[in-house]
Formats: sequence, C-alpha cells, structure tokens
Amino acid sequence: MKIALDVLGGDLAPMTNIEGAMDYLNEVGDAAAELILVGDKKVIKSALQSYTYNNSKVHVFHTTEVVGMHEKPSRIFKEKPDSSLVKSIQLVKDGKANAAVSAGNTGALLTSSLFLIGKIPGIRRPAFAPFIPSSKGGFILCDAGANADSKPQHLVQFALMAGAYMEHLEKRPHPRVALLNIGSEKNKGNELTTATYPLLEKLVDNFIGNIEARYIMEGKADIIICDGFTGNIVLKLTEGIITHLMEWVQGLYYNQSDDDDLSSEFLSVLKEIQNTLDHEEHGATPLLGINGVVMKCHGSATSRGISNSLLAAQKTVEENLIADIADRLSQHKALFERDSKIGETNPV
Amino acid sequence: MKIALDVLGGDLAPMTNIEGAMDYLNEVGDAAAELILVGDKKVIKSALQSYTYNNSKVHVFHTTEVVGMHEKPSRIFKEKPDSSLVKSIQLVKDGKANAAVSAGNTGALLTSSLFLIGKIPGIRRPAFAPFIPSSKGGFILCDAGANADSKPQHLVQFALMAGAYMEHLEKRPHPRVALLNIGSEKNKGNELTTATYPLLEKLVDNFIGNIEARYIMEGKADIIICDGFTGNIVLKLTEGIITHLMEWVQGLYYNQSDDDDLSSEFLSVLKEIQNTLDHEEHGATPLLGINGVVMKCHGSATSRGISNSLLAAQKTVEENLIADIADRLSQHKALFERDSKIGETNPV
Repeated sequence: MKIALDVLGGDLAPMTNIEGAMDYLNEVGDAAAELILVGDKKVIKSALQSYTYNNSKVHVFHTTEVVGMHEKPSRIFKEKPDSSLVKSIQLVKDGKANAAVSAGNTGALLTSSLFLIGKIPGIRRPAFAPFIPSSKGGFILCDAGANADSKPQHLVQFALMAGAYMEHLEKRPHPRVALLNIGSEKNKGNELTTATYPLLEKLVDNFIGNIEARYIMEGKADIIICDGFTGNIVLKLTEGIITHLMEWVQGLYYNQSDDDDLSSEFLSVLKEIQNTLDHEEHGATPLLGINGVVMKCHGSATSRGISNSLLAAQKTVEENLIADIADRLSQHKALFERDSKIGETNPV
Repeated sequence: MKIALDVLGGDLAPMTNIEGAMDYLNEVGDAAAELILVGDKKVIKSALQSYTYNNSKVHVFHTTEVVGMHEKPSRIFKEKPDSSLVKSIQLVKDGKANAAVSAGNTGALLTSSLFLIGKIPGIRRPAFAPFIPSSKGGFILCDAGANADSKPQHLVQFALMAGAYMEHLEKRPHPRVALLNIGSEKNKGNELTTATYPLLEKLVDNFIGNIEARYIMEGKADIIICDGFTGNIVLKLTEGIITHLMEWVQGLYYNQSDDDDLSSEFLSVLKEIQNTLDHEEHGATPLLGINGVVMKCHGSATSRGISNSLLAAQKTVEENLIADIADRLSQHKALFERDSKIGETNPV
C-alpha cells in the first residue's frame, strides 16, 4: 500500500508533516504503508537526515507549488496542477497511491478530488464527516461543510455513507443515526428537515429520529445528519465554545490562585478534557462519496495529527470503505431511485 | 404602567413566578409597575400571604387553564382562549396591560401574539432575539427560532429590530452587526447568506460582514444575524456544550480531589463562570416585531429570572422599543420597498 502525503499543506507544514510521517513509520513498523512525500525534494531530504527510519518505505514526489489556505478553491486543479495538494490527489487517480492525506485548503481538496477522481457511482454529493469527541463517546457529524445547500436526497446519502464510515473505522456496529433539528417531534423543523425525516425513516437502519443541538454531546446518537451549512456552524461553534470556556477557566483560576501547589489537580483535570476533545487523536476524516481515499486533516494538525491521519488512511484502504459505501447504495437502489425522482421534482 | 405576568407558565410555575413577582416589587419599590398576576386566584392569594409587599401594586386575573410546554402552538389562541398565556397577551391587546411576561410555551406565545396583537406595520416576520452572555460581553442572536425558514428580506429586518433592542435595552450605541456564515469572505455561504450579505451592507449601519461560528463568543460583534433554524441550533448547542463541559470539569475534579479544602478556589471559578453565563441575569427577551411588548422568559426561569424579566419588560415599555422599531423601518422604507420587491420575486 502507498499513501501520498501533502507535505506542503497545513498551518505547520512542511516540518510538522514530515515529523508526523516519520512517527507513523516508526510506530507502525513493518505493517506501515509506503509513503510518497509530495513536496520540495531539497527541504524533505534535508529534514529526513535528522530521523532514523526505514527508507525503503519513503518516496519523494518533487513539487514546490503550494495552495494557500484562503485561495478560492473552485479552480485550483486547473490553476495549480503542480501543487502538492493537487499532485497528491493525482497520484490516487493514476493508481500510484492508494490514498492521499492533506492538511491543506479543504475546499481545494474537495473540488480537486471531485474533478480528478469523481464521485462513487450513484452518489449525488460528497460529504465531510468529522468525528466530534465528547465525554460520552463522541459522534460523526455529516455533512460538516462539503456543501453549502443540501436537498433531502443528499441527507439520506450522507446517513448511508456515515454509517459505513462509523461501522468500519470506529467499529461501532449498527450506529444510531439522528437528524439534527430544532425540535424532537417528527413534524418539527424547516422545509429541509421535515422533508428529510420520512426518507431517513424509510431508508436508513437504526434511525432514531430528530436530535436537538442541546443534546448532541450527550452520547444519544452515533451519527448526526444535517446540511453542510448547519454542520459547519456546529463544528466551528463546538470548537469555539470549548476553546473560549477552557481559556476562561484557566484565566480565572490563575487570577485567583496564590499558591502554585494548588493547581496540580486542576491542571490534570484540564489536561484530561483537552486530551479527550483533541481532534488530533482521530486524525483525518475521509471525504465521503469521493471514489478514492482522500483524507482531510485539521488545518493546524500537529505531528501526532498527521501520524494518526496516516493510520486512519491505511485503515480506510484496508477496510475497503469505498467499496462498502458503493455496496450500501446499491442495496438501497430500488427504493432510492423511486424516491429520488420524487425528491428531484420537489427540490427544497 | 401595568405588566401581566403568566403565573401558570414555565417549568417552575406557579410558586416561582409568584416569588419572582414579589422580589421585583420589593426591589424596585415605588418605581415598580403594577402587576396583573394571571392564574388561579386561590393559589395566588394563598401564596401571597407569606410575603410582605405593596398590595396596591398587585392585581389578580383569575384563570386555571394552562398551556403545556409540548402542546402544538399553532391553534392555542383558539383552543385555549382562557389559558393564562393567551389571557396575558389579551390584556395587552385590550390595552389593560402595557406588557406581558411569560415563561410558557414559546411557540404558543409567538403564534398567540401574532394572532391577537399582530406585527408592527411593515415587519414581515417576528424574531426571537436572546442575549447570549460570554466572558467578552455577549451578543444578541437574531433570529433564534421564531421562524424555521427565512428569506434575505427577513434577515435585514431582524438586523434593524435587534439594533433597536441592543441600543435601548443593553445601552450599546451603534452595535456591530455580523452575519453568521461558514466563511468570512463576502462570497461565502449558502443561497440565503450570499443573497443577504449585499442587502445588509446597503441597509444596516455598522454591518461588519460575516462571522464564523468559531468566533461568536469572542466579542467581535454585538448582534449576530441568522435564519431561525440556524439560530435555534446555535442557541441550544451553546447551552448544551457549556452544560456538558461544566459537568465534566466538576465530575473529574471531584474524582481526583482527596482534600476537600482544595476545592474552594476551584468552586469560585466555576461560580463566576456560571454567574456570567446565567440567562437569568438578563431576564426575558422581547418577541421582536410584535406590535406590543411580549416578553419570553426561559422555560426553567427561577424567581430571579422572573424578577429580572419584569424589570426588562418595564424597561422595554419605558424605552418605547416598539415605536423605535417602527421608526427605524420607516426610515429605510424607500430602499426597503424597492429591495423587497426584488426579494419577493426571487425567494430563496
């Protein structure tokens, strides 16, 4: 197996990405995939000199072009075909890598993957499905921003794709699927959610109904489905509030505390929470619906984040996630096509 | 001035509501409004015996019918015209009270207010605009759930109404208005936000552009505008995450702490945060756009929440919020009508 790593993508690139790659190889040992480091040959070779590693597992694909985090993503694959981000995806398309991993511009990664690799047959929209940790075990949020506007049909496919992801990668069989909504009753919600509810009820195993945002951290659902606009708000708000609250607690505590000895227990509490909530632990998430394994790391991924992302990519390839998603879709094909016509003639 | 208080509405009614009313009267003294306590005469009279208060300020409007928190709101004003919730609104409509305050069913309060009192002329949709506290001063979120689906025109009116509310009641002149979105650039977002941005830019003073959910607690905007579905998700998610995190911190701390003495500073930190975040501090929020003062308290309002809500209602009447909203709308009338036609023929 070969995994292409976008060495130039992410806030801490390139050194952190290289460090993460070395950590991955040394932790996994013989079972590790071979890595194709996509970036500046000179920088990579120079950096590698400070590591001890199995060099038969490391290949370098030279390029120096970078995609900025705030570049308009829609035409990156045409305007920057030589960028490390686009080249990493190209390697998957050409069958030279089994997976691509990048901490770069999310929109560019998505549009380039769509253009170069395309969607799994039958999938209408790809989805971004991060794992959100909590003290009660966490959940997958889907879609968290691959799409700005969604239709009921799309949400049903998000649920099927996220189900496959959850079962394979997180090893939770029969995950409970909930629809994010502004009330728990079936008839509550906006045009999109009220039209989506009956479809999820009919087509998705273990659909447990609506969930209100107040309860998403409480471990009542394994998968939470919503449109990409709402999901992106939820993802960023969750990160923002947790950061805000943790900084606030620490600031107040240090203001009030005269005695340095007092803070050891307090710090260990904060540490435990931060470790549980840390997105680095889960590494990258696959871009669901793309007909190949493309994994997105957090933009500020540390070396541990990169290392865990390479592990996640390896697992995604080994577990055959793409084939499983295709299989699940085909199982629902008859129902789906009938419903999709209804959905298409009555778009939200 | 007279304020009608729905004694039977809310999770802790009726005793907590009566206690809050007494606290209000005793705190404000001669400057207090007269209160019309709407509820069961026998229960109210019996409860009042345990308080010392200025009884010339207290009137009782007898009714025993209650609106449940989970009753379908749309026809409450027809099906339960004698309920304490509907009667409180009716007193405003009939000119017998200057304001109504209720901790009851939000949907029922809104639909009954719309039916009985109606909207301020020119307003297309009412909005729910709670104040969300943070360590950086807090902000008004509008709409937080009065509407499930919204159009660009509605969001502009939400901004104008929330601006009047912020200036008068929170005494923040020239509040900074931001549009909640999934990116900071002007062209980012879904169909609704991309269509709304240029209208806010043209029609709303001090519009500072898009704000991502990650930054809403950081004090960068005084008013955050969004559709009611998204706003309701944000409101409930904020409450849910804060509760989750505070319980988690406390649980871990008690598990790790052997020495009871150690916890005093820690508890004072938690107490300070909880006091700042406490929605009771701000009391009720007006249902913006209704042509009369109707204030919604949190469903689980304590006596302090009720007391502060009565204060907020008094201030809303004294500050003439309704007239100010009508005035702001009429100032924008020319522009608004031209745009509203564009908006209406191109609904999102």
